[in-house]
Order: sequence, then structure tokens, then C-alpha cells
Amino acid sequence: MADLDPDEFRKLGHAVVDWVAAYREGLPERPVRPDVAPGWVRAQLPTALPEEPGGLAALLGDVDRAVVPATTHWQHPGFHGFFPANASLHSLLGDILSGGLGVQGMLWSTSPAATEVEQVLLDGMAAALGLDPGFTFAGGGGGVIQDSASSASLVALLAALHRSSPGWRETGVDGTERVYVTAETHSSLAKAVRVAGLGARALRVVDPLPGSLAMSPSALAAAIEADITAGLRPVLVCPTVGTTGTGAVDPVREVAEVARPHGTWVHVDAAWAGVAALCPELRWVVDGAELADSFVTDAHKWLLTAFDASLLWVRDVRALPAALSITPEYLRNTASESGEVVDYRDWQVPLGRRFRALKLWAVLHGVGLSGLREHVRGHVALAAELAGWVRAEPGFALAAPPSLALVCLRADTGDPAADDAASRAVLEHVNASGAALLTHTLVDGRYTIRVAIGSVATERAHVVDLWERLRGARALVRQP
Amino acid sequence: MADLDPDEFRKLGHAVVDWVAAYREGLPERPVRPDVAPGWVRAQLPTALPEEPGGLAALLGDVDRAVVPATTHWQHPGFHGFFPANASLHSLLGDILSGGLGVQGMLWSTSPAATEVEQVLLDGMAAALGLDPGFTFAGGGGGVIQDSASSASLVALLAALHRSSPGWRETGVDGTERVYVTAETHSSLAKAVRVAGLGARALRVVDPLPGSLAMSPSALAAAIEADITAGLRPVLVCPTVGTTGTGAVDPVREVAEVARPHGTWVHVDAAWAGVAALCPELRWVVDGAELADSFVTDAHKWLLTAFDASLLWVRDVRALPAALSITPEYLRNTASESGEVVDYRDWQVPLGRRFRALKLWAVLHGVGLSGLREHVRGHVALAAELAGWVRAEPGFALAAPPSLALVCLRADTGDPAADDAASRAVLEHVNASGAALLTHTLVDGRYTIRVAIGSVATERAHVVDLWERLRGARALVRQP
Repeated sequence: MADLDPDEFRKLGHAVVDWVAAYREGLPERPVRPDVAPGWVRAQLPTALPEEPGGLAALLGDVDRAVVPATTHWQHPGFHGFFPANASLHSLLGDILSGGLGVQGMLWSTSPAATEVEQVLLDGMAAALGLDPGFTFAGGGGGVIQDSASSASLVALLAALHRSSPGWRETGVDGTERVYVTAETHSSLAKAVRVAGLGARALRVVDPLPGSLAMSPSALAAAIEADITAGLRPVLVCPTVGTTGTGAVDPVREVAEVARPHGTWVHVDAAWAGVAALCPELRWVVDGAELADSFVTDAHKWLLTAFDASLLWVRDVRALPAALSITPEYLRNTASESGEVVDYRDWQVPLGRRFRALKLWAVLHGVGLSGLREHVRGHVALAAELAGWVRAEPGFALAAPPSLALVCLRADTGDPAADDAASRAVLEHVNASGAALLTHTLVDGRYTIRVAIGSVATERAHVVDLWERLRGARALVRQP
Repeated sequence: MADLDPDEFRKLGHAVVDWVAAYREGLPERPVRPDVAPGWVRAQLPTALPEEPGGLAALLGDVDRAVVPATTHWQHPGFHGFFPANASLHSLLGDILSGGLGVQGMLWSTSPAATEVEQVLLDGMAAALGLDPGFTFAGGGGGVIQDSASSASLVALLAALHRSSPGWRETGVDGTERVYVTAETHSSLAKAVRVAGLGARALRVVDPLPGSLAMSPSALAAAIEADITAGLRPVLVCPTVGTTGTGAVDPVREVAEVARPHGTWVHVDAAWAGVAALCPELRWVVDGAELADSFVTDAHKWLLTAFDASLLWVRDVRALPAALSITPEYLRNTASESGEVVDYRDWQVPLGRRFRALKLWAVLHGVGLSGLREHVRGHVALAAELAGWVRAEPGFALAAPPSLALVCLRADTGDPAADDAASRAVLEHVNASGAALLTHTLVDGRYTIRVAIGSVATERAHVVDLWERLRGARALVRQP
């Protein structure tokens, strides 16, 4: 047999676990962002693959030499870029179990537990988030783990296309489909529209509410009505709860009230922010979602669970299989034909699937719902504290209202024309320190520093340190 | 911090590694297929998620009680269903490292090593498989790890749509696109056609060569010419090397020679069989691929590497980004704008991505290319042996020519009308034993037992045992 025998695996597995423990332990001493030029990693590695085994020593040697120095450390306590990508060690325990089982969950029959644990988990998470019971299997809907919110949005769009035109599976799209977003909607919606063959012309960018970045329901109503008058079909609208740029929140309820009478699918993208609904005081993030057709939030951003684990719920348990199912002979089986089981391959684009539920299940056993709430609450509180410091500091301004654990700020030089350069210089100075990593966006066309709080290891001291670095950088930038 | 501290993780991580070792060790004693009814797993688990942590004991308790007894054991030595889903323990070591690093490889800058190791690996694998150097980054093409061959086929189709019509990104598909397959092509092509908005009408099922299941190049030529005459656009043809049903091989070279003059994208689906090209004597599986635009083979079927790891190469390094790239402000960065790096997010549908290369890299360090060749060769030899036994046995017949490590057989009762029922009864009898798992297909409309050899733990003794069980079942079926 080509594989390790179990005793060898015990020994090498322990060594790899120890490597991971040491890596996490040493993170605070590493710069968050590597200092390598394109091609550096390739230059460290031989061109030809190993003809003979070198064993774990060779593997770890390569990792220590070529990988770690060229890694952006997303699990570093000073990582505040993009959104967090929580990969807790609890989650890793679950993922090791999943890898050990090594099953394919494409059909119920190809591994009943992989399917049913996911169903139990998604039903349980719906309840824990306060989602409408209509999103559970018991309530006629159901949840599924997708690899990403991008894929979740794509399959929601496909289900919407099918619902809008029963001939879609046979004749495809016809050019009359329209999809409604805002300028702040995640780019994955534009990608889904492209992938689904609609072309960018199908994307309607709805105006925001005055003085806001959130979708205007009246502008949406006007756009839908104009499109219908023009013979077009309003297929899907995507309100976002917590945009990537600034954490803005579209008025989901009002958007849904506009869309539903036209049969327009309402897909709520709460990829980052949705998990906050675990905390009763933050449950407003799912307000109005009971009127939606689908809702997605990522366990792999802020919920301690490693990528890939996007939680997608749909209100109609038949919607995704109706759009996506194709059954060749070699996948036919008694259980599927009984109609008593869920075959998750029909809820996604790929056929194969890992047992991803175990990652989140391990997190739940590891910290409980109470621990998840504490994790989210702690970061929201830190963000509020940081936002307060920004407000009180003459050289800085908030670039957008703080949202949950995201703070958007910019340098305030007194001369709007100079703010962009100063903000960029501050960001670059902080990033060059290696102690923190920040990324940027544009708000109303102005350069904006995003501070996303939420890495697994981030505690108050790290945010205090970041603030001191921001202030220090600002002071340097102030002088010519 | 909500996470385990490193010392706790060392302890719990070792325990989980030990659990996996014991699970793998005990596999031969378990029935391959669980005996559970729909709903059994759900009934074992509480409806509400844990409010407080129960720790690893609670997690493993659930896994032992509710998961393992309801698992189809894909890593069992008697697993011969579908195609194998190799998840070697070597691969798991790499995946634990990937989980430990916990990085997002969406852009080069979000983790340079995750991108460049994947580039080195895919270039090296192209060389090891004997693929044309035009598929490497050095040769103007490049490789990428997709989650599945389904996703690989989808992105190949999207690139083909873009190449066929530069306006596709703006105006979408127009209903004139046509995609060429055979009746044996994997259902993921039909799914990709649906997802991409073409509808089933775009799918042309090309006739096979006489007396064969392989695509007829002259039938393809006739179909393409008829479509062009009708004002349609031949966008993509998918020759398969090793179909899922029977392992049939389309004549890639002749198919490509027909397709290329029309600008039709040639996507070679060698999901299962392609990895055999590591062995010089089996390199015929990539014959003609040098004329293709893209080529996919799965490391996660037969190459010891756990799902998800489909290896996709394209001849034009710009093809996938041209079709898939969309860049919002928050993803802009200096490295991407320099044009010196690969941003793999533009090579796939999802934005996020794990460091999947480490799994295959760990396998290569663990067994070397020499070990991979031995793994493949061993299974091919076992299949040849089994096929010989089938040929020599009066009560059985080969249902299709054996292909690499796949043997398709049926009961031969002397009465063709009785063969299907007998074959089905034999399969069900073997599966009920728990010692092996077989799945079926139809060949020329006749019920056919598939024996896919290739699980990580499968050795000669398991195939001998399977053959005895097949013969025993056949003997039982013979009698009324």
C-alpha cells in the first residue's frame, strides 16, 4: 500500500500538529505581510517534482524555508485586512476528522452522515441566528454549506432564473433578465451574472438612499417598473447586510417588499455580518430576511470556522435541485428515488463535496454558542472603542459610520485634496511596520482605510497597538 | 481569545490524529456501506446546537455514535464504487498544514506562497504527466487547482464563450452557442452548459464510432458543419479520456483536428484517467492533448490526494482571467497591477481559496513520483487480472473493454432478457455482504456492474476476495 500505515501516521500527524501549534504560537513575532517579490517562492523550489520520497522532514523543510516567509498571516492578531478569515484550531480539529473520514457527500447514499449532520447543523444555525423557520428543512426550506458566498450567490441566481422562466433549463437565458444591486454590492454578484450568461448589461446598479450607501427601495421600485415596462424580467435583487467596502446595510425588508410582488428572487448577502445575529442585541442584521428567498452568511469569516464554509439557506427546499439536478445512470439509487433524502450535489455546481459540516460542528462543541457570541461581541466592542478614538482625534475622520466590527477612517488634513495621499501614506506606513495589515477602499471616491476587527487571535491590546501606530503614522505624514 | 491555546491544541490535535489512525486501521472490519434509513442520523442528534462547550469528548462521542455507523467508507479497501476518492494520510498531513496556515490565496498578495507553490506544482505535474510544455507557465499557459472537474469544465466553457464572442462579458450568451459531447460524457458538462445559461438545446450529443462508445470525429465534423451552416457557433468540444460509465476514451487528437479549424475550444476531461500518464507505458492517455485548449485530471480520485484537487491546465495564461476577472477597489493592489503575478481568483468562480497545493505536495514528498506510478500501475495490473477472470468465467461477461483500473461486467445467463435482473441481483448481493461496494451503469441499455479499483488501501487480496464474492453471488442467482 502506498499510504502511511496508521502507526507512521500517528507519529507524523503528531509532528504536524506540533508544527501548527508552534506556528500559531509564533505568529505575533512575525510581520503580518511578507516582504517578497514576485517569483521569490518559485526561485526557492526545484523545478522538478521529487522522484523519490523525502518524507515529512523534506516537506516541513520546504514549508519553513519557502512558504512561511512568503505568507500573509491571516491568523495573525494584527490582521485587519479585507474581512477576517477565521481558522480556529477548534475548526482544524473538525477538519482533521473530515480528512480522516475522506468521504464524498455528493449523494445522501454516498455518505448519509455527511448529509444529515449538515442538515441538522444548518437547521440549528438557522434557529440560533433567529432566521425564519421557513428556512429550515422542517419548515419547507433548507440550508447547505457552499464553498463561498460567491458560489452561494451564483446558485441563488440559477434558482431565480429557473423560477422566472421554466424553460431556462432547456433554452437558457434570453437577454431579458435583470439583476439589481448597488455600487457597494460584492463583486461576486457581477461575476455570477457573467457566469450565468446574462452579461453585464443585466446588472442594474440601483441608487442609494440620500446621504447613504444603502440601496434605495424607491429607486429599486422605479428601476423594476421601468424594466418591466421595457419588456424585461426582474429576476433577482441582492440586498447586502454589511458591504465589503464599509459594512453598509441595505434595507432588506423594504427591498423585499418592493421585489416580491414582481416575483423577483430576494437573495440576502450577509456574508460577513450575518453571523452577528447570534447575539440578540445584534439580531437586527437578519431583520427582513424572513421575506427573502435565500440568505447567506459565512462561518469562515468571523465564526471561527476555516474556509470553506458559507452557510446558505433557501426558503423552498426544491428550488436548488429544480435548477441544478441532472442524473446520469451511474448516480441513480434507491434512496434518491424515494424522495426522502437530500442529495446535496443538486444544491451546488460541483458534483463532489467534502464533509465540511464537521469544521463548524467542532467549533460548536469547542466553544458553544455562548463562546461564539462572546467572540463576536468582543470584536464589536473593540470596533466601537476604536471608532470613538478616531472621532476624538483631530487628524483623523470616520469615512463611514462604523459597522459592527469594521471601522473605516481617513486622514483629515483640513484640505480634502490632500486627504487621499495622507491616508494612503498612513496605511502604507502601518503595513510596513509588520505589526498590522490594513487594506483600503474608496468611499465617495475618497481613499479610505478599512480596519476589520475579527481575527481569531485579536484582543484589545492589538487594537490599542494599532491605534498608536495609526496615530504615529499620521504624525509623520503631517510633516513634510 | 476564543481559540484553543497552542498547548491545548497539541493535546487535542494528537488525540484527533490518533482517532483518525484508529479509524483507518479498523476500516477492513467495517461494512463498506452503512445500513441506515433516511433520518437515522438526524434522530441521533439533538435539535438544538450546544449552548456551552462540550469539548473534544463530546465531538468524538457524536462522531462515534452518529457519524461512523452512517458513513459510506470511501477509504475502505473494498470500496469499488463510482471512482475512487483517494484520501491518503500523506495528503492529510499536507492538509493539516494548510489548515494551520489558514491563509486565503485569492490574490498573489494575499499569500504569495499559496499562489507560487501551486504554480510550481502544476508546472511540475505537467512535466511529470508528459503534457505539452505549452500548458506550463513557462510555456505561456498555466495550471490551477479547481475544487472539482465539474468546476474545471465550467470555467473552460466560460473561457471558450469569451473567446468565441468578445462581447460575451457585456451582452451574455445569444442562443447560438453549441457544445459537443457524447452520451458518455460526464453529466458535469450538461450542468456547465445549464449554469452558463446556454440551456440543454446547446448540447450536441455526437454519435460514437461504430461498435464503440468513443466520439466519432467524422460525426463531430458533420455536426459542427451543420451547425455553422445553420448560423450556430461551435464553442467547445469535450473529448473524454476515461468516461465515468466504462472508461471509454475519445480520440482526442482526431477530435481536436476537427475542432480547431473552427476555433472551437477543446477541453479534455481526463478527470479519472489522466493521472495514469505518470507511467510512461500509460502515457497514451494524454495523446493528442497537445492540441487541446485545456486539460483536467483529478489528483483527488486516483492520486492519493484528498478532495478537492482537480488539476486544470490551459494553453493560454490569459484565457481564464479574461473571462472571469472583475476588480473592485478593495482588491486592487500593486502586485496585481504590475502584471507580474497570477491572481488565482481570476481562474475560478469563487473569490476565496484554500492552500490546496499543500495536499498534493505532501503526497509527492511522502511517496515521490515513483510511488505514485507504483500506486497506479498496481491497480491497473489488478484490473487486468480481474478482467481475465471475468473473461474465463462462463457465468459472466465483460460489458465493455476494461479500461485502466475499471472493469465493467455483467451476468451472462445465456438469455439476454434475464441478464439485467441477474446482474442487479449479483451487485446487490455483493453490496449486502459489506465487504465491498460496487455501483452500476448502463452499457447499450444493459445493466452493468462497475468495478473501479483504486482505493488507497486496495491490494490484491481484496480483489481476489471480491471476485470470489462475485462468483458466489452469481452461483446463488443461477438457482431460482
